[in-house]
Amino acid sequence: MARRILVIGASASGIEAAAAARKKDRTAEIILITQEKTAGYSRCGLPFVIGGHIPTFRDLVVYPQAFFQMLKLDLRTQTKATVINPKDKTLTIQTKENSTQTLPYDVLVIATGAEPFMPPIKGKEKPGIHSLRNIEDGEKIDAAIKAGAKSALIMGAGLIGLELSAGLVERGLKVTVVEMLPQILPQFLDADMAKLVQQHLEEKGIKILLNNVVEEFLGETKISAVKVSGEVIEADLIISAFGVRASTKLAVEAGIALGETQAIKTNGRMETEIKDVYAVGDCAEAPSLITHRPTCAQLGTIAVREGKVAGINAGGDYSLFGGVLASAVTQLFDIQAANTGLTQTVAQRNRIEVITGTVSSKTRASYFPGAKPIKIKLIVEKESQRIIGAQIVGGEEVTQRINCLSFAIQQGMTIQELAKADTAYAPPLCETWEPMVLAAEMILMKLR
Amino acid sequence: MARRILVIGASASGIEAAAAARKKDRTAEIILITQEKTAGYSRCGLPFVIGGHIPTFRDLVVYPQAFFQMLKLDLRTQTKATVINPKDKTLTIQTKENSTQTLPYDVLVIATGAEPFMPPIKGKEKPGIHSLRNIEDGEKIDAAIKAGAKSALIMGAGLIGLELSAGLVERGLKVTVVEMLPQILPQFLDADMAKLVQQHLEEKGIKILLNNVVEEFLGETKISAVKVSGEVIEADLIISAFGVRASTKLAVEAGIALGETQAIKTNGRMETEIKDVYAVGDCAEAPSLITHRPTCAQLGTIAVREGKVAGINAGGDYSLFGGVLASAVTQLFDIQAANTGLTQTVAQRNRIEVITGTVSSKTRASYFPGAKPIKIKLIVEKESQRIIGAQIVGGEEVTQRINCLSFAIQQGMTIQELAKADTAYAPPLCETWEPMVLAAEMILMKLR
Repeated sequence: MARRILVIGASASGIEAAAAARKKDRTAEIILITQEKTAGYSRCGLPFVIGGHIPTFRDLVVYPQAFFQMLKLDLRTQTKATVINPKDKTLTIQTKENSTQTLPYDVLVIATGAEPFMPPIKGKEKPGIHSLRNIEDGEKIDAAIKAGAKSALIMGAGLIGLELSAGLVERGLKVTVVEMLPQILPQFLDADMAKLVQQHLEEKGIKILLNNVVEEFLGETKISAVKVSGEVIEADLIISAFGVRASTKLAVEAGIALGETQAIKTNGRMETEIKDVYAVGDCAEAPSLITHRPTCAQLGTIAVREGKVAGINAGGDYSLFGGVLASAVTQLFDIQAANTGLTQTVAQRNRIEVITGTVSSKTRASYFPGAKPIKIKLIVEKESQRIIGAQIVGGEEVTQRINCLSFAIQQGMTIQELAKADTAYAPPLCETWEPMVLAAEMILMKLR
Repeated sequence: MARRILVIGASASGIEAAAAARKKDRTAEIILITQEKTAGYSRCGLPFVIGGHIPTFRDLVVYPQAFFQMLKLDLRTQTKATVINPKDKTLTIQTKENSTQTLPYDVLVIATGAEPFMPPIKGKEKPGIHSLRNIEDGEKIDAAIKAGAKSALIMGAGLIGLELSAGLVERGLKVTVVEMLPQILPQFLDADMAKLVQQHLEEKGIKILLNNVVEEFLGETKISAVKVSGEVIEADLIISAFGVRASTKLAVEAGIALGETQAIKTNGRMETEIKDVYAVGDCAEAPSLITHRPTCAQLGTIAVREGKVAGINAGGDYSLFGGVLASAVTQLFDIQAANTGLTQTVAQRNRIEVITGTVSSKTRASYFPGAKPIKIKLIVEKESQRIIGAQIVGGEEVTQRINCLSFAIQQGMTIQELAKADTAYAPPLCETWEPMVLAAEMILMKLR
């Protein structure tokens, strides 16, 4: 009899898992269950539809119906997984038609993702707060703009909050961002690098309030203003971007263990502490390649990699997930900001002694018109002199530089090796001395 | 008494050597000798001035007078080094004023560069052939265009020939390129990847004649046409881009050994077989990081790295040159082409068995407007399964991808490791599954 593989969630990691399982097991019944109306779209693209870069939310669908048909994946949208019973190996679901079914499984993959986090702020139960996690959220924000919204207050200066802020400015709104911490992008960049991004956002007209606490949501029936560190800020659109938390309710109720990050604990094969139950994507933990401690990176790239590993294992073959560097990049107006490995802040929190080096350079030969500024920060572990983190803020060609440094970290490259690295050069495309190499030189000077 | 360091050549490698020597020896007398009128300009920028991207040839000067003054480097332009006497440790020069001087040295750095190569073609002694090695060459081509040249014949489809061809098209000329070999960029790309570049050049109107031999230069007093595989081609501008050869005459006359590439033989410190005499840049050999055989890459990036190493040694400190991957990139109209490590052709010539993988993808999320095609070819050594070469042709973000793969090769990354690499993603900047990782997957599929 054909094996049955159930996947809860039909976004990046869930679909990747299902597709990988199919490649390994041609006969298995593979069912994907999602509460959403639309499966297989890019969440990361949502802010860019709002910003007007991408015509419609429909365009974000990366996996069309034909994909699921071709791979014989039984996709069930608007379907809710309600109970996992690992002892009986069954999953109870509530169908689109509101009937309850209990499906036996041979392998279960939990790819329930994450949900927007809302701190316990007074008035939060009242309607009127937007967030941006799915297409419906995006459509609501888009509708509000089309209905005449002129101003927005974004609570949280993380990646989603800032990408959305940029999108709203591009649509003509006046945007204020509130952040409790003393810097923007606190999970992503060190304060010195975040400052560059902040300056750019401010130049583009975004008002950024750091060290400010959201204290209360104001409004009679609907929230129309927010009390921020004692001051009342009114806005047509009030958007929660406090971050997301792993969606673990189903797993917890089934007795599946969480790890120290409060996401689902996994082993190297992305299996939970219960046999034949895997967890992948934003709801799952995986170890950092540097600290070897559990992390929950909640990035699309990590989600697909974990999904693929779980899918191969679910399909009866063998694959190990190597670990996370959490390389990531964002485009905000005219600049790109990226990170890989540990920030200086995170390294120090992990009691890792570091030496850092920062260099400002250009993205093309200095004499070539259109050369844009670029700033690179390297974080090197003191004893091994190996690179353990990097951050880049620049006008172009940032993504693949962070990938260079991700490769460097993954391969244990020392700062001496980076200083000697062989790099490509052409006047329209980069400088003779690649800025990454110059940043390595800065650190070598400190070591001498 | 202060030591005297003489540097013959004041382009990339010579200046880098002088500057590095100065950092190590604050008191040395450091003299740079060049036959050219202008020192310290970017040769790589010449085609882009002709193409009109950079306003004037003056703009290519990267090291102004102030730089030499600041570092107390005694720069002597329009001065010719005529005899090296390694036994007496002297260099004879012919000054700008045509007087002969003999300068004793403690350390000599030979950075004589390379010169355009002209095969023994009938009629080559007649005037009328242009080349593009220095500012004067560029000015002559520019003057010819301003005087009304409408057509050009470029002999040689290497990097310089093609960059110049693109520049001439951008200036409105009708351009024909003649290449003896069956592909363009034979030193740089494998035939399959070169084909993509060729198609793009042809779309832009360049006529490319492969497998064609330049047989004779025609014209009474001045060359006005070229006989190519039996056919007479007339052109207003006839340009030799057959490649360059290391300028080794001075070294050879002084008894300094050349290596198997016919460039000056060096050790790891960039020292020639004669103590206290270094050779760097386009006239010098250095080992390949992969084959460990001598190479003469003749790239600006290699020149500055070698120059720096020789300068540190010349200044009394210690530095080793690691070796050459010869990472390089070019921009031709709307595409970028890059290479690092060995091509498949060169690997096979070295009797290295390889597995290759090629992938075509996009430079942004497929739904993000402006996504451009990109093609990546990986070359993997069969036994170690390590990456030993890569080629990329694409619309954007090519340079730093080739740097990623250069880092990968340098660090001994296996194809399995590349397939698991952690990469950054954002819809406007790249795909979720980085094409380099997909190319690794292609190879893994072949290995299974």
